[in-house]
Amino acid sequence: MAVYTEVPDEALAAFIAGYGIGAVTSCKGIAEGVENSNFLLHTAQGAYILTLYEKRVAKADLPFFLGLMEHLAAAGISCPVPLRDRSGAMLGELAGRPAALVTFLEGLSLRRPAARHAGALGAGLADLHKAGQGFGMSRPNALSVPGWADLAARLGADADKVSPGLTNVISDELAALRASWPRGLPAGVIHADLFPNNVFFMGDALSGFIDFYFACNDLFAYDISICLNAWCFEDDRSYNITKGQALLSAYAARRALDPAELDALPLLARGAALRFLLTRAYDWLHTPENALVKRLDPMEYLRKLRFFQKVASARDLGWGMTA
Amino acid sequence: MAVYTEVPDEALAAFIAGYGIGAVTSCKGIAEGVENSNFLLHTAQGAYILTLYEKRVAKADLPFFLGLMEHLAAAGISCPVPLRDRSGAMLGELAGRPAALVTFLEGLSLRRPAARHAGALGAGLADLHKAGQGFGMSRPNALSVPGWADLAARLGADADKVSPGLTNVISDELAALRASWPRGLPAGVIHADLFPNNVFFMGDALSGFIDFYFACNDLFAYDISICLNAWCFEDDRSYNITKGQALLSAYAARRALDPAELDALPLLARGAALRFLLTRAYDWLHTPENALVKRLDPMEYLRKLRFFQKVASARDLGWGMTA
Repeated sequence: MAVYTEVPDEALAAFIAGYGIGAVTSCKGIAEGVENSNFLLHTAQGAYILTLYEKRVAKADLPFFLGLMEHLAAAGISCPVPLRDRSGAMLGELAGRPAALVTFLEGLSLRRPAARHAGALGAGLADLHKAGQGFGMSRPNALSVPGWADLAARLGADADKVSPGLTNVISDELAALRASWPRGLPAGVIHADLFPNNVFFMGDALSGFIDFYFACNDLFAYDISICLNAWCFEDDRSYNITKGQALLSAYAARRALDPAELDALPLLARGAALRFLLTRAYDWLHTPENALVKRLDPMEYLRKLRFFQKVASARDLGWGMTA
Repeated sequence: MAVYTEVPDEALAAFIAGYGIGAVTSCKGIAEGVENSNFLLHTAQGAYILTLYEKRVAKADLPFFLGLMEHLAAAGISCPVPLRDRSGAMLGELAGRPAALVTFLEGLSLRRPAARHAGALGAGLADLHKAGQGFGMSRPNALSVPGWADLAARLGADADKVSPGLTNVISDELAALRASWPRGLPAGVIHADLFPNNVFFMGDALSGFIDFYFACNDLFAYDISICLNAWCFEDDRSYNITKGQALLSAYAARRALDPAELDALPLLARGAALRFLLTRAYDWLHTPENALVKRLDPMEYLRKLRFFQKVASARDLGWGMTA
């Protein structure tokens, strides 16, 4: 949950007046996203989300994120669409923060997605990857191998405070990934943070994607491997191969997977597990225990990493299984 | 801000199905209220607020609060209206908590109300007091003189940790109020917590009242005195007599004020200042510094108390002034 910034009444009214959507009839701070302040706004014309970007999001990246949402929406992907103000700008300033107004997307994020939802996600992810083609901007993935090495260096021996021995696990894994990280696989714009809370459903149908603030250019199969981490484990940390099968087969039905992508999948999934292990361990050590932001357990991703380290091929993840 | 309870997907769907308002199309935890968990819900039929009552609200009081909102709405007051489920009940259970669904009220709460808004509040408050007549239930004010004495006893000498000497200020004031607290003034259902965040406006027009979870039976003039505390001081803690004038004259235009009520107003305002001083001091000492709930400064109400102690008559508060 996160509402970090209070918006003065007059400043809000003046900001919204720039969009020609009528006056604000209600404005509620909502408990969504952990990086920014979000408000659900009503005007006579409908519902909108107002986002104030807090310090963790680099202002220089905002045109990429907002431009991407506009591009994807135009390509038929259901996602929040940034509004342009009368001057044509998608990015403004409110209460001293960069601010944007996007359309409100109906839908519910699932706390316990089932295999059928993992399937819907796989299909939607392939559509997202295809729709990103032709987007004119690019942004390197700050959280790929070199970024992990930086994070690991900043963590240093403190990782052992999270769990004894973690420092060595991280450096060994980093060395292994660095030695074998694939090159030349199909790449494009990826979401890079497609956890269940960023995917909306209406009943069993996927109704849209939100929170593009980690989107970047990277391997499509790496985005898939993030989803395997985020969608296919049970609360007891066991891998649900039925969900993996549903996700992979639905994806491949919309965008064919190269043999090289499938070969790389176990290693990419290790990379994704390490990525969330590192950021969670860092946040664990740098977030006060009872802060507004709920700390997420890094150990969940150590367990996932250990699982993927033992996976021999995409078959072990559900690929090629009969549904 | 407050979202304390997570609601499982299926439980939410099942709960809402009981109301015949269509399926939930979105559900956002909102940063509103400090006592309960609140969610802004959309269905095909409109917007609603779902409230899960957390432990600070006594379950036995909920029929009073919900019944009052239904009564006031029927009497023409703009406030959230509790929905009745198919069995006719306004109170259900969700995620192990008592839960209710109310209509969504459009409007914005003002962070810096002006004198014209204090006037609109005065008129609305008189309407609220009149509309409460005929409501069949009653609830004693747990936070009047005896309740303050209890709170002061629980605070004990710890009040000096909030501010040196505060323990004596509280016990002296409590003795003075106990000796002179008025009896026999016009009474009925009061809101008892009508701070600007609980009053919505559309432009300069009052559009409704929310958060009836301190409502009770007490003196109408005490409710007015709470509003003088909550609406008529500037950020520099000075009393704005123009706002006091606007509030009192607009109130009296809708419900005539007895001379005895006006005479009692300075003392009642001291009582209201003490009430918020006590609860804020208690919360100050019992809420971790970086908890989810923002602690409110008790000293603000010590300053207001000192101001009202020096007030000789309702004239000093703006009564009888020419606008």
